[in-house]
Amino acid sequence: MRVLGVDPGLTRLGLGVVDSGSPTRPQLVAVGVVRTPADESVDVRLGRIAEAFDQWIDEHRPDVVAIERVFARSDVSTIIGTAQASGLTMGLAARRGLPVAMHTPSEVKAAITGSGRADKRQMTHMVTRILRLDAPPKPADAADALGLAITHLWRGAVAGASTPGKEKDVLARRARTTAGTGLTPAQQQWARAMRAARA
Amino acid sequence: MRVLGVDPGLTRLGLGVVDSGSPTRPQLVAVGVVRTPADESVDVRLGRIAEAFDQWIDEHRPDVVAIERVFARSDVSTIIGTAQASGLTMGLAARRGLPVAMHTPSEVKAAITGSGRADKRQMTHMVTRILRLDAPPKPADAADALGLAITHLWRGAVAGASTPGKEKDVLARRARTTAGTGLTPAQQQWARAMRAARA
Repeated sequence: MRVLGVDPGLTRLGLGVVDSGSPTRPQLVAVGVVRTPADESVDVRLGRIAEAFDQWIDEHRPDVVAIERVFARSDVSTIIGTAQASGLTMGLAARRGLPVAMHTPSEVKAAITGSGRADKRQMTHMVTRILRLDAPPKPADAADALGLAITHLWRGAVAGASTPGKEKDVLARRARTTAGTGLTPAQQQWARAMRAARA
Repeated sequence: MRVLGVDPGLTRLGLGVVDSGSPTRPQLVAVGVVRTPADESVDVRLGRIAEAFDQWIDEHRPDVVAIERVFARSDVSTIIGTAQASGLTMGLAARRGLPVAMHTPSEVKAAITGSGRADKRQMTHMVTRILRLDAPPKPADAADALGLAITHLWRGAVAGASTPGKEKDVLARRARTTAGTGLTPAQQQWARAMRAARA
């Protein structure tokens, strides 16, 4: 599975593509940031983002797009621009028939670092490590987009999307009984893989 | 000149197309609302809006798109969806090379009814009158989109976009001296036309 992670913003929109590979070995495919100049009008900046986003989809052909969820409680000075950029990328992806998943910043931080309150430095450090890169991904402000893509791979796997409903229930009940974790054996395997990747 | 007015929203997105005709006679071309079901995921709803918006542009070939400006102070429960829908339509229009203008709700109300605090009933009444329709435009919640388009025609004319900068300065200074209104003769003519249309 190939995931395109999107960290939406008007001034900087982060993009990161990750392949699933084996559970412990998500693979970096591409990373980048679309920057638009603050002295241009918002519509022109959004037009540039639309162009760049569609080019990334054409080039990397993701199976799913994972976008950071925007909250009404976010920073008021940037919330409109962030929501506009997220809405644009969501609409463009959906229109091309791509599934879109949303993850909150704290979900991403928790999945990648183990703490929902991790700072930017920790995130970059862990993304570098999980993807086994020789140096932190550049541009630095695209680490969040990669974090989103990795989080989606991991959460998607844990959610057991490919396990039929009834079997999943049985497995889940058995797992709760035997292990007390509420996870199926497959999920426990994934959880171990995630911990190993973070270790 | 043909203007496509957009009243952005996730549940209802209003669209209205108006031709300039003569100053006092803006002409209705088309009006409609794109509705998306609240039980669908936001990305799918935005994908539907993208489809519909591009179809309107293909069909009506506007020269400019006028979109309601979204504020961070707006209703918090709907602000994210509204900003997402506005960002999507702005980006799609800009990408097709169309100029995009933004007008605030109070600018539209003031232009159409003479009061920045007019209610929905007054707006619908005046839009019906200005466009010389036999009955209020349907669907009713698209009156704001038509109001945006008409406002853009009027304000664009008053701004004197086609007058070269230096000449505009001279005209403006002369107008201020002779008439004390700060308007050029052409602008005064437009202002009279606007008042006549509202009368």
